[in-house]
Amino acid sequence: MARKKLTDTEIQSKLGKLNGWTVENGKLHKEFKFDNFVSAFGFMTQLALIAESMNHHPEWFNVYNRVTIDMMTHDADGISDLDFEFAAHADALSEK
Amino acid sequence: MARKKLTDTEIQSKLGKLNGWTVENGKLHKEFKFDNFVSAFGFMTQLALIAESMNHHPEWFNVYNRVTIDMMTHDADGISDLDFEFAAHADALSEK
Amino acid sequence: MARKKLTDTEIQSKLGKLNGWTVENGKLHKEFKFDNFVSAFGFMTQLALIAESMNHHPEWFNVYNRVTIDMMTHDADGISDLDFEFAAHADALSEK
Amino acid sequence: MARKKLTDTEIQSKLGKLNGWTVENGKLHKEFKFDNFVSAFGFMTQLALIAESMNHHPEWFNVYNRVTIDMMTHDADGISDLDFEFAAHADALSEK
Repeated sequence: MARKKLTDTEIQSKLGKLNGWTVENGKLHKEFKFDNFVSAFGFMTQLALIAESMNHHPEWFNVYNRVTIDMMTHDADGISDLDFEFAAHADALSEK
Repeated sequence: MARKKLTDTEIQSKLGKLNGWTVENGKLHKEFKFDNFVSAFGFMTQLALIAESMNHHPEWFNVYNRVTIDMMTHDADGISDLDFEFAAHADALSEK
Repeated sequence: MARKKLTDTEIQSKLGKLNGWTVENGKLHKEFKFDNFVSAFGFMTQLALIAESMNHHPEWFNVYNRVTIDMMTHDADGISDLDFEFAAHADALSEK
Repeated sequence: MARKKLTDTEIQSKLGKLNGWTVENGKLHKEFKFDNFVSAFGFMTQLALIAESMNHHPEWFNVYNRVTIDMMTHDADGISDLDFEFAAHADALSEK
């Protein structure tokens, strides 16, 4: 159920509760900025643990202190609740 | 010195000694494929330790079992020996 | 069920199929040795991803190229199948 | 020079400026506690990046949300400035 494709209306409603996430190319998208590479990679490692545990893995890009994340659910051929759950984890970790 | 921009001839000569690296958009480029996310992220963590130690950080992208690396040396405004050193580390780790 | 405490006979039988694991202080125990810290920590990160995913976490110690693991299942008040499953993952990763 | 063994007086003076570090068995010692394994291992990964970069590696133990660190400098056969530098990094990371 969590992997069901959300409608545009559902997505817009959920985006309103997050901070800094947008939809780009059909994926939930956000760019995170940290103090340095150590902080950025610490964030990625924590999120990697959560991703593996959810069996839901991001498309992500890193260079030095920046991490860009794109999330979609292949099984749903779109954005699902799972992506919003992942986004919430990313936000919680990045705010620490 | 290691951060001096290499000429195209030097780059082509050095590429001949590596396996699977090309130049794309002025950067040393390679895509690595692993068995799964655990292997891919293990590779990234090891390379992150080396990158921080070299103070030379990659542009890299990961989704599940794939890791794409692009290397250039900003101080040199091009590809330097440092990028080839990093590429050799990446190859050595990926072959384990 | 996987969290049921194994008998000594079951443990001895299962130990026979592994390589280098012993029982110390009521825990499955093994010391791993790697080439250097980068390899040791790469191993730990991969195992951390698996541990979080299993929701079954090791007691482990690291110094430079050595990683010592002790596993038991608190819910079972002893060694369970889960610990042997974790041990098999650790062996598979360390052999790469 | 950073690897010179500190005297007991020097160590006591430096300990006074840190929070929660003690000397146990001739090593700088502290136990860190986190919310969960993800936070604990995120801390370890960041510190691993710093350790490799300093070429100065901890003896550390982890179980779930706890990380215990013991630091000494083998070259100095005791505690050196390098260990206090590492301790300061650990404290800074753990407070985030």
